[in-house]
This record gives sequence, structure tokens and C-alpha cells, in this order.
Amino acid sequence: MTYRNPLEIARLAYLPKHPPGLTECATAVKSAPPAASSEEVRALFPKTFDLPAITFEAGGKPPANGKPLRVGVILSGGPAPGGHNVIAGIFDGIKRIDPASSVFGFRNGPSGILENSGIELDGPLLDTYRNTGGFDIIGSGRTKLQSDEDFRKALENAGARMLDGLVVIGGDDSNTNACMLAEFALAAGSPLQVLGVPKTIDGDLKNKYVETSFGFDTASKVYSDLIGNIHRDAISIRKYWHFIKLMGRSASHIALECALQTHPTITLISEEIADREMALHEIVDQIADSICYRANHDENFGTVLIPEGLVEFIPEMRALIRELNDVLATGIEEFNALGTLPHKREYVNDCLSPSSAGLYRRLPREIANQLILDRDPHGNVQVSKVDTQRLIIELVEHRLGMMKSRGLYSGTFTPQHHYLGYEGRCAAPSNFDADYSYSLGFTAALLLREGATGYMATVRNLIGSSGDWIPGGIPLSRMMHLERRHGTDVPVIQKALVDLEGPAFRELAAYRDGWSKKTSFSFPGPVQYFGPQDVCDRTTLTLQLEQAL
Amino acid sequence: MTYRNPLEIARLAYLPKHPPGLTECATAVKSAPPAASSEEVRALFPKTFDLPAITFEAGGKPPANGKPLRVGVILSGGPAPGGHNVIAGIFDGIKRIDPASSVFGFRNGPSGILENSGIELDGPLLDTYRNTGGFDIIGSGRTKLQSDEDFRKALENAGARMLDGLVVIGGDDSNTNACMLAEFALAAGSPLQVLGVPKTIDGDLKNKYVETSFGFDTASKVYSDLIGNIHRDAISIRKYWHFIKLMGRSASHIALECALQTHPTITLISEEIADREMALHEIVDQIADSICYRANHDENFGTVLIPEGLVEFIPEMRALIRELNDVLATGIEEFNALGTLPHKREYVNDCLSPSSAGLYRRLPREIANQLILDRDPHGNVQVSKVDTQRLIIELVEHRLGMMKSRGLYSGTFTPQHHYLGYEGRCAAPSNFDADYSYSLGFTAALLLREGATGYMATVRNLIGSSGDWIPGGIPLSRMMHLERRHGTDVPVIQKALVDLEGPAFRELAAYRDGWSKKTSFSFPGPVQYFGPQDVCDRTTLTLQLEQAL
Repeated sequence: MTYRNPLEIARLAYLPKHPPGLTECATAVKSAPPAASSEEVRALFPKTFDLPAITFEAGGKPPANGKPLRVGVILSGGPAPGGHNVIAGIFDGIKRIDPASSVFGFRNGPSGILENSGIELDGPLLDTYRNTGGFDIIGSGRTKLQSDEDFRKALENAGARMLDGLVVIGGDDSNTNACMLAEFALAAGSPLQVLGVPKTIDGDLKNKYVETSFGFDTASKVYSDLIGNIHRDAISIRKYWHFIKLMGRSASHIALECALQTHPTITLISEEIADREMALHEIVDQIADSICYRANHDENFGTVLIPEGLVEFIPEMRALIRELNDVLATGIEEFNALGTLPHKREYVNDCLSPSSAGLYRRLPREIANQLILDRDPHGNVQVSKVDTQRLIIELVEHRLGMMKSRGLYSGTFTPQHHYLGYEGRCAAPSNFDADYSYSLGFTAALLLREGATGYMATVRNLIGSSGDWIPGGIPLSRMMHLERRHGTDVPVIQKALVDLEGPAFRELAAYRDGWSKKTSFSFPGPVQYFGPQDVCDRTTLTLQLEQAL
Repeated sequence: MTYRNPLEIARLAYLPKHPPGLTECATAVKSAPPAASSEEVRALFPKTFDLPAITFEAGGKPPANGKPLRVGVILSGGPAPGGHNVIAGIFDGIKRIDPASSVFGFRNGPSGILENSGIELDGPLLDTYRNTGGFDIIGSGRTKLQSDEDFRKALENAGARMLDGLVVIGGDDSNTNACMLAEFALAAGSPLQVLGVPKTIDGDLKNKYVETSFGFDTASKVYSDLIGNIHRDAISIRKYWHFIKLMGRSASHIALECALQTHPTITLISEEIADREMALHEIVDQIADSICYRANHDENFGTVLIPEGLVEFIPEMRALIRELNDVLATGIEEFNALGTLPHKREYVNDCLSPSSAGLYRRLPREIANQLILDRDPHGNVQVSKVDTQRLIIELVEHRLGMMKSRGLYSGTFTPQHHYLGYEGRCAAPSNFDADYSYSLGFTAALLLREGATGYMATVRNLIGSSGDWIPGGIPLSRMMHLERRHGTDVPVIQKALVDLEGPAFRELAAYRDGWSKKTSFSFPGPVQYFGPQDVCDRTTLTLQLEQAL
């Protein structure tokens, strides 16, 4: 018997808010999706690219086709708050369409369908997961379904389980692959309908059809709460600079949203640094200047938000990492034969271009070691293992030392470093994410009812109250473009990086100079479930700013 | 104009619940405190030791002495959720006793009264801090008031500000010093009344008069929420072992409370390790055994809670650190003259006793370096800088490697490390801490009305609803015993370590073997303010277990 906390018990009983029209009776309205940008993509997805856009409207007749739906679900990639509610939404939807419908959960990500491993998800089981965080109901995994061999195996196993539909809950890559599987199934004459649901805490799965992915709301709120607490500590103690790395490999949406919520002293946005081609020392100088200015104004404390993926967005670091990968690929035996770390660093240094060698020599020793020692199975540098927050701290310390020796800085620099990651991505969903992900799941059920395949389930108009949300579906291939990967053009759903012309970044840009000089910290507090609506139900500032346009 | 989040606005309007009798009319009832254990302490506090215990009961006449109270407050040491509410309680209390009363806040801890630096805390200002976290309204500091010189200066500055009372909001040391100041003031014929309020997130300021300190409730809830989220991640991903260091230098109350809330795989309790005289390798073996067992049962993941102060409770580490301090004190010039780290380690090693040298050699290199490089201004090893979680991880890795080579372990060990500290100690207070700290402040106001000095404000019967809480005061010296510090016996309020015979530890001991084998994670979720009472108002399990006796 599992012990449950009082809050968990209360949350299990929460009924997600959703559009009142989102019932088994909803009518599918079809319309042409906006003009496609890519004829090449159309050619790759001949069977799904020109399918209509769908929205579901209230009213209509109860479904009477008498065919129960048998649906498989896959949770793919890193967990995001709301995953269990997507499944609950699918379950409730297909059960209302036909009570004999059923959901089968493939275990541990896409590999579950390849290995034909999973469990029946019945009502009593699902009732113990409603509105909870995590992906533990069936687990998740990072295996990709991408070869024809994978697709054949998936169709075979889906067929053996008599599945009508397969819903892949995942990020950009998983949805891309879901679309390829849908196209493959159609071409192979398989009846399996394949749908995608947009998941990722990183917030980089959004486009003109998808306003936000589920999970971003909760994760950024959890991190913002903690940053707010650190802010309160900073102004109480008045002597620490907190360097806070935030989860999110590619895009800086989380850092941006947290910045808008909490008003930190400094926020690094990877996309801007890449766009302005900033060197590492320029980033460091900017931070050191703020520290110096604030120390001179009796504010010897602050916070710096650092997106996890930063290092790869700094052009010179990116070049260095690329060169290191080459050096280690070609000279790995010689490298491994060297006994000591100084020798290894020297060896690497000799192989690098002059500019990269100069940069490598200036890196703190621990980071220089990390770059050559922690490599992935393909021999590549593991950028995610680089302690970016410590790298920045050490370089800032060095810079402040130089400024001190020139009489430009007289303060005492006491840094603290933090990494906010695993604390947030499995949090229980906020009301918004609970409602949104449930609605996405229910919408997927209706898309299955319609016989749709190759679609992403969407719910739009999200800054309105849930009563005004618009459920529907868009052909996944409509979101794709061609990207060069390993020398070939492949269709992918483009990751949405922070738009430097967009309203969210512009909002940060308008305030951050002020924040870097004068303390303007804000304290969002923990996610609330039961209180006033403006406390409990509002979503991210990013979404509000973007959709208010 | 400060921006305020919706939750913060809602919380500013929250009216802390407190005993209905806790008004300006409450009647003070005096009784003898329990028999003293120490005649030596009585001799050191002749004027306050035999003062009566006080409780405040509902009813009584409105105060009519016509004397407004002028009260100074000091926030001392690390911040704890509820500090602002103590001040609000004092303010509301003395204003109701006489509307002409006023509060003066000394800035940045005890040094504020020595430097006579601070601000008037008026109603409009306080209204922007009610129910908020942090100590930023006046700041805090770690200066100690302890010499006669300090006391004279404090009395002089308090006199110049016409203070009737001084309330010190702090931990064991600050309250000890408050008592000494009270005694000093009485002896010097000063009219200044000095009171203490029990603050610390660490939970180690408790005794037969004080059920818990304010702040412990909130901090342990914030950490438990995050541990719960990490638990959810662990069971979703099923491949990480999370090593989580928790703030709290001396006692392991936070680790214990978080363990009771979240049911981690393994919890290290420093007091038990000291009591059982465990060696470092025994701790490591215990963890490695659990990892091995679980890997063999398809549960290749887990969590380990590590109290921040652990290292000093491991007898052999404590001995090593003491020896290192001696070595570095006597040989510091020789040590500093050595150029490289290997030479420094070698030098130190040669000076250590055989057993300490053996241990030092077995430590991971980074930790061995930390122990000799990070020293405080007195030249001592900075134990708090030791990355205990990384130390344990490296040793466990090594141990598992040995087990693997013997065929005893075949899993893949992927550790993650976390430190939960600054994220919690400045969180906004839970309802319990908001209510409790406000009540403590209001009680302090009544003690001042009574002319009391040398008292700690107390509120008891805390596991009842706030309507049943019992406000009062106890002479601080009654909580003291003599402790040898730097070769002299000094009176101190004893830190409450985890009682290995107490109900909270016994509860952990009853369950932890099961938790270490079979995943039993619990997920408390974020602090809630507005929901059902059992979600929003319940306090720590530690308090519930201890006071239910």
C-alpha cells in the first residue's frame, strides 16, 4: 500500500478544466492549413502533408459507430509535468466515445513498441496517477523510432495488439518520427493511426500551430519559485552572488521565462550570445562590470541565470568543441596512451588551431579537463557535463582580480552556484499544465475518432480561460522543414529558439539594464492549486506576451 | 515601485492565525519553572534564573498603564522563514497595548546595535513584509554580542534610543547572548528588557520548553517538495542515483524530517554515525550494498539524503580534520612555501598520525585538496566547503568498481548530486510558520508589557490547532548548561541533536530497511496556502511525533 501525502490525495481528485465543448460529441471542422513553406517536405510526406487542419467545436451527435478504440501510448524523452494527464485525457476521451475502448501503455519510451513491452492502463490504475508529475506510470526512454526497420516492427507489434491508434507524447524529434511512422503506415496499408502530443519543459516545441508544449509552465514555475527564494536570501545576506544554471539544452526559454518572473541581476540568453557572436570574455566582462558597479553602490550581491546549453552558443567555444571532437577522433590512441592530465592537455593544445588553443589555455583547469575526459560513446565532448556555472564563476573571479589590481574593484566576491534541473521536470503539474495536458489527451482521442493520422493534437487560444480554448489537430508534416544532419537533408520539426525580435525577449531587453544595476528581485512563490484564480491558474509570461500579439 | 507577484499580494493580506486569547488583554499567569539541572548556571545568572515561568491566558483587563513601549529588534544569524512575522507580531502587540508604541529595527544583525544603525519600522513598511520570507526588512548578521564591552555599548545605544525592550530573534548562541545581556542590564541597573525568540531552520533549538524553532517547518517542506520531485524523476527515468546534501551544519533534524516526508532509499543521520562510531568506509559500504541489491532487483536508482554536517560526525574524519588544523597551524609557512598540490598533500601526509594519513590517502584527490586549501581566517579547515555529496559518490563509485571486479555487482551506476540549502531558508513561511512566528512576536510584546527580561518567548501545544496554542515565556538561563569552549566552561543553550531514542528517529529506524530495498518514495508537493486544512496547516512530522508523546 503506497503512502500518499494529503496534497497528493487532494490532487488526485482534481478535475482538469477543459473547454466545455471538448466532449465525445464534439464536431470536427476541417479547414486548409496555412500555405506550406516547403515543397521538399510535401514530397517526403505525400499522404499526410495536405490533410486538413481540424478544430473541434461544441455540439454534435453522440458517436454511434459502435467501434471501441484501442490506443497505444508512448512517453518519449525527458519527463514533463502533465504526461500522466495526457494519458488520462486520452483514456477518458475514448471511454466516452465507446466504453469498450482501451489504452495500452508501452514501457520505457519508444523501445517499448519495438520490444512489444507494456501494460494495460485501466481506470483504477489511471486514477492513482491523475494530476501527478513524472512519467512513471509506464516510464520513458530516449530510443528513437526512425528506420524503416523500426517502423515495420512497430506496425507489426501494434497490429498484434490490435491497436487502432498510437499516441506519441514527446518533443520535436519524437513528433517528427511519429509523423514518419504515420506516413509509413499509410504507405504500407496499415490501419494504425499515429498522433503526436507536444511535450517538453524546454519550451522549444512551439510554432504557428502550437502555442506552447505542456510541462514548460510547471517547470519554469518551480525554478522561478526557487530563484525567488534565492533572491530573498541574496537581499537578506547581501554578500553572495548566485550563479544559477537552468535545465534546457538548446533553447533559453526557461531562463527567459524565469527572468521575467523573478527579475534577476543578469540573464544570459544563449540565442543572443550566438547572434551577437560574443566571446566568452565579453560575457565575463559584462558580469564583472555589474558586480563592480553594484559593489560600488553597496549592493554586493546578485543573481546570474545561465541556460544549460550556453557553451554551445558561444561561437569560439563551439569551434573549440568541434576541434576537440576532431582531435580526439583522429588521435584517440595517442591521446589515451598519455599518462598524465597535463600531458593530455598539452597534446590536445598542440593539435588545435591557434585561436582555439588560446581559448583552451585560458579555461580553468577543471573545465579544460572536463572537455577532454567526459566523452560520450561516440567520442564527442559531453557539453552537458561541463560545469558552466563554475566556468563562469572562475573566469569572473579572475577578471575581478585583474580589476582589483587596477583599483577598479574593491569588493569581496563570494559566489554560490546552483543547478536547477531534476527538481523541476517531474514536479506535479500546475493547474495550467494539468488542464492543458488533459485537454491535449482528450483532443487526441477525438482525432482518433475522426480517423486522423499524422497529426499533432493541439489546443490553442491558451491565454483565454480554459472555456475558450480551441482543441484541434494539425498535420505534423506542416511543422517541418529540412535540416542538414550528418550530411543529409532530413525533415524535422524545427526547434523554436528564443526569438530575439519576439515580445518575451523584448520585455527582458527593456528591463534588464535596470535590473543589473538596481536590485529589482521578484518572488513568485510556490505553485498553488487551491487559491485565487490569478494565483493558481495563470500561465507563463512568455505565453501571455507571445499570444497577446 | 516594487513589482509584486499575485501570490505575494495574496500573502501580504493573510492574517496569521493565533490563539484567540493572545490579545493585549491577556493575563500573565506565573508559575515556577521545572527544577534546574545546574547550580553552576544559577550562579552565573543570579538575577534571571529564578524568575517564574509565564503563560498568557485569555481575558483580563485592557492595559491602562499609559506607557507606550519602545522596542528594538535584531535578526541574528542565518535567515529563517517567519522572521518578518515575528516583527509584525511584536508591532501589532505593542500597538494594541498602546498605540504610541514603536519598533526600531537594528540593521544587519547584532552589529546594528553596536554601531547604532537601523530604521524605524512603521505600519506601512511592515505591511509590505507580512508573511514574506527572508530577513531583508533590516538584514541579518553573524556578529556576536558577548563581551562586557559589547553589552555596555548595546545598553548605551539602546538607552540613547530610549528603548524599553530589545528582542533578539536568533538561534542558540544569539539567545544565550541575549540572556547574558539581560543579566548584565539588570546588574548595571539598566531598565532595558531583553528577550529572545527561537529561530533556526536547522531545528536544533528545542528543549523541554521550546517545541520547535520557527523556520524549520517551511525549510523542511521546501526541501521535501524538491526531494519528492527528484523521487518522481528517479522512478520515471530508472537509472539515476541522487545524492542530496541538505543544509544544516550540526544536527540532522532536516534530513530526518525530509526522510519521514519523502521515504528516500537511504538517509544518513550524523548523530547515529557518531554514536555508532562508524568509519567512512562503513557508510560507503552500506550505500553500495543497497545499490547492488536494488540493481539486482531491477531498481537501478535511488536517493541518498546527506546532512551537511556529516563529515564532522564521522569519528575518523573528525580526527583527521583536527590533525590537519594542527599541522597547518604549526607548519603553515613551510606548507605555503611548497609549490605544487602533490607536494602539499605529501607534506601534510607526513605530519599526520598513521591512521589519519591512511584515511587522507584514500580520500578522492579533490576532497584531499579541499581539506588543505579552503581554510577559514583562523587557518582551520572549512568543513562546510567539503563537497560531502561528491566525496560519498566517488567512494561509492570506487567500492562498486571493486564489487564489480569480484562479480558482486553488474549494474551501471549513474550518480547525480544536489545541494538543497539557499533555496529553502528564505522561502515565504508556510501557514504554520507564519502563524507560529507571528504568535511568538505577539507573545514577546506581552512579555515586555509584563516587564519581563531574560526570557524566551514561547508558544506551546503546537500540534493542536492555533486556537489551543499556549503562549508564554521561560527564563532563558533555565535552558542552559555549561559547555567547555576554548578551555573554559561557558553557559550555553544546548543544541538539540537528533535523539536516537526519540520518536522521530525511531520512526525512521522502523521503516528505512524496507525503503532501502523496495522503492517507497513519497511526494509531498509544494507548500500550499489556500487549500484544505490538512494540506495547508499541518506542521512537521518531527513535531507531531515528538509532541504526541
